[in-house]
Amino acid sequence: MKRKIFELIDEKGINKSKWNRWFDGFIIALIVLSIIAIILESHENLNQKFSYAFRAFEFFTVFIFTVEYLLRVWTADLKYPNKGQISARAKFIFSAYGLIDLLAILPFFLPFVFKFDLRFVRILRVFRLLRVFKLNRYTKALKLVGSVCKEKSSELAVTAFVTIVLILLSSTVMYHVENEVQPDKFPNIVSTFWWSVATLTTIGYGDVVPITAWGRLISGIIALLGIGLVAMPTGIISAAFIEKVGEEKEEESDYNYCPHCGERLK
Amino acid sequence: MKRKIFELIDEKGINKSKWNRWFDGFIIALIVLSIIAIILESHENLNQKFSYAFRAFEFFTVFIFTVEYLLRVWTADLKYPNKGQISARAKFIFSAYGLIDLLAILPFFLPFVFKFDLRFVRILRVFRLLRVFKLNRYTKALKLVGSVCKEKSSELAVTAFVTIVLILLSSTVMYHVENEVQPDKFPNIVSTFWWSVATLTTIGYGDVVPITAWGRLISGIIALLGIGLVAMPTGIISAAFIEKVGEEKEEESDYNYCPHCGERLK
Amino acid sequence: MKRKIFELIDEKGINKSKWNRWFDGFIIALIVLSIIAIILESHENLNQKFSYAFRAFEFFTVFIFTVEYLLRVWTADLKYPNKGQISARAKFIFSAYGLIDLLAILPFFLPFVFKFDLRFVRILRVFRLLRVFKLNRYTKALKLVGSVCKEKSSELAVTAFVTIVLILLSSTVMYHVENEVQPDKFPNIVSTFWWSVATLTTIGYGDVVPITAWGRLISGIIALLGIGLVAMPTGIISAAFIEKVGEEKEEESDYNYCPHCGERLK
Amino acid sequence: MKRKIFELIDEKGINKSKWNRWFDGFIIALIVLSIIAIILESHENLNQKFSYAFRAFEFFTVFIFTVEYLLRVWTADLKYPNKGQISARAKFIFSAYGLIDLLAILPFFLPFVFKFDLRFVRILRVFRLLRVFKLNRYTKALKLVGSVCKEKSSELAVTAFVTIVLILLSSTVMYHVENEVQPDKFPNIVSTFWWSVATLTTIGYGDVVPITAWGRLISGIIALLGIGLVAMPTGIISAAFIEKVGEEKEEESDYNYCPHCGERLK
Repeated sequence: MKRKIFELIDEKGINKSKWNRWFDGFIIALIVLSIIAIILESHENLNQKFSYAFRAFEFFTVFIFTVEYLLRVWTADLKYPNKGQISARAKFIFSAYGLIDLLAILPFFLPFVFKFDLRFVRILRVFRLLRVFKLNRYTKALKLVGSVCKEKSSELAVTAFVTIVLILLSSTVMYHVENEVQPDKFPNIVSTFWWSVATLTTIGYGDVVPITAWGRLISGIIALLGIGLVAMPTGIISAAFIEKVGEEKEEESDYNYCPHCGERLK
Repeated sequence: MKRKIFELIDEKGINKSKWNRWFDGFIIALIVLSIIAIILESHENLNQKFSYAFRAFEFFTVFIFTVEYLLRVWTADLKYPNKGQISARAKFIFSAYGLIDLLAILPFFLPFVFKFDLRFVRILRVFRLLRVFKLNRYTKALKLVGSVCKEKSSELAVTAFVTIVLILLSSTVMYHVENEVQPDKFPNIVSTFWWSVATLTTIGYGDVVPITAWGRLISGIIALLGIGLVAMPTGIISAAFIEKVGEEKEEESDYNYCPHCGERLK
Repeated sequence: MKRKIFELIDEKGINKSKWNRWFDGFIIALIVLSIIAIILESHENLNQKFSYAFRAFEFFTVFIFTVEYLLRVWTADLKYPNKGQISARAKFIFSAYGLIDLLAILPFFLPFVFKFDLRFVRILRVFRLLRVFKLNRYTKALKLVGSVCKEKSSELAVTAFVTIVLILLSSTVMYHVENEVQPDKFPNIVSTFWWSVATLTTIGYGDVVPITAWGRLISGIIALLGIGLVAMPTGIISAAFIEKVGEEKEEESDYNYCPHCGERLK
Repeated sequence: MKRKIFELIDEKGINKSKWNRWFDGFIIALIVLSIIAIILESHENLNQKFSYAFRAFEFFTVFIFTVEYLLRVWTADLKYPNKGQISARAKFIFSAYGLIDLLAILPFFLPFVFKFDLRFVRILRVFRLLRVFKLNRYTKALKLVGSVCKEKSSELAVTAFVTIVLILLSSTVMYHVENEVQPDKFPNIVSTFWWSVATLTTIGYGDVVPITAWGRLISGIIALLGIGLVAMPTGIISAAFIEKVGEEKEEESDYNYCPHCGERLK
């Protein structure tokens, strides 16, 4: 029976039975509905009208997720057959998926953080949808996007460092230039970070804007550097994607064997 | 005669007669003028002054388009000679071009949705201009752009999923942070989506802006992640374009054999 | 003497004499100063104080540019030695550089458009600086940037077409959604173009912003499509640059001769 | 003893002793804390409360940095053993790192610029953190990013020139179009630069916005050209990154000869 439950709830990739599909579909539907409930609950008048329904549905969702979580913990030794009873369960509990599953139900059982944190943390259920991606043709794309970010982490870190330096420098300069004229908009360097980020990312909300000639000159320079800031990670990521495609092709190619002696090259 | 009409209205690619050119030019001019009329009609004072002219021109346009549509349906069996009379016509009616042609005239004949929907749907006539692109040197470019989008749909879907998750998370967090201070700007999570999208796309209208320290911190982080959001599809699309160009070259290249001695070069 | 003047004013690429350098430097300085003068003249109080100086400097600039222009016309037959006296001069006058030179001085001699147009057209002198780029290491880069834009013009035209269609569609829809609530901000479709462009380019001035739920939903979708709008030309241009680099390398490579028979391959 | 001090304070790359690590960690911590102090000092109420503590910490920081700087000057002849006593020290003092180190302490010793400039220049200490990057795996990434910017400097300069021309042209045109209607927002061409930069970089603060029909038309065109402005450097930088990766692979590849039979493969 334990094996049957395991086979029902386990992700199998492509060759999954009808029951697997039904179970997966049910869980996904529950996650999506639960997220929609969280969103709708924030509407004050909806919350007042249907507060009972929201509570009942939340109770039902958490109940299902808890049962599912406990079953996954119980059948963890079948998932990792090489491990012992306890270590297999520990491995599942502290795996990324295990922790996400726990986060989805935990807030409900912590009444002392009930009022505020519950709603806040519940939205992390959205990550449970990653399981969906594990099961289909998006796996390759997700892995590709992930590996691109990972491989170029050093270059992206350098870009991030340059960004931080730019934010620090521009905020400090801007604070000294604009503080006297607009003490309410540029009260201190930390507050000026807000302007820096809005400018460097080219968002430009327009709530904090320099009005002095020097402030505008510096802001203009920062803005033009902001283009570089957008161009740099784009260039890095483009290069990584192209590299990946190139590597894939190379693996596919006929260069695995020497055309002269027929020996394997790799 | 049916064949003559078919030859007149059918797209032929490059080798088209003078009559074809005249007919195409006439239809394109009518589409463009009809779109201009739709746009100008929205000017209240223009609409009051020339309401008769606008109605007359609309009547004329729809009449021509209807005749053209019926002729295309009638000659569909010449377009798809391998199919039967009815199935050929059904194929045309339910093809993308057939549906666009129908949408361009249908609103006129539905008096019960006349008042609002008519104007709204009529603008879809702009898609009829795609026929223009079918007929010239832009075909290749259009196909290239299309195939790039199609081929990388999985990667773009992953980016879209990440975007949706980011919007969900940031909206939920932001709602809880800013709702108390600005209940009119962040009244519920759905309304906060508006701020999320404006920030992640780096638009930053500035109508909804966080004012608390925590709100600004989270907003700054979201903004910097927004750069990644722009960088990711750009990188994917760049890689796809480069791949395409590489594939084309490979196919084109006669360099596999020397044209002089016939020996293999690679 | 004519030859000496020609040698003085003609661009020579790298091997130019001391006199050439002095002449070029003088003209460039005059262009830059003249542009600065145009900019400063727009300051009302500066213009009132130094109006005489601005007029005198403008007179001097136009005098020098006119003499230079006439000399260039006069020596055009030495620039194009294969052509006749008149056709060589006509060729220079109607060349891009000739027209720019003419535009830089013409407004001064047209007193009837003196008041408004003069200032407006004078700024086109900035294009005279392109001559500077003709003379140094930026030539290759300028040509590369130019040829990238030219080669991918079809793809960029398709992107432009998609952009126009998006602007048309979103403006029409937005006008019908927001007109009733904000008749002053969305008075007609043409005015709504302003909102469309600001949103699709991710500028987001914030002066025209949807306030209805439907308006915001559509605006959000348009905004996310706007990212694609930025990604597409970036991808196209990236691919073109990479292609160019690839082509250059191929030309440099040893594949010009077949390694087997030694015959030229290209 | 001099050698011991040199070995303590010198950067050694990977094989550094425990004492090296402790020293580096201490200096980095001091830089970071000093930057945090500069930022917090700008909060008026924090500055009033803890003004003594801030002064004391600043004194301590400058003392340590001064001692470190003098020791580096003293041991410069061990850093550059091929040079003489004086020329080695001069080389260090006028090196990028030497100047950054000097800028970090100099403001303290210049009492006449004490009030304003001190805070302003002190933030440049952030560049001292570059030493951190010299010592670890980010070196390669930093060099790559640097060499990409350097190698494509001509192309980026051309883009910058085009940007400046666009700013000049659009500002002049916009000034003449909008000045009459909004003399406070577009008072002169220099002030209109502010609008130009905000539009071309797609920031769009929204504090200066055209309201005339012509102004909005021109603004829309500038905005769409602004997309090209972002696309161009992104394309250039992407191409450079891909080139670099390609070059690296070419150098790495042993595929020129088959490792089994020794025949040429390409």
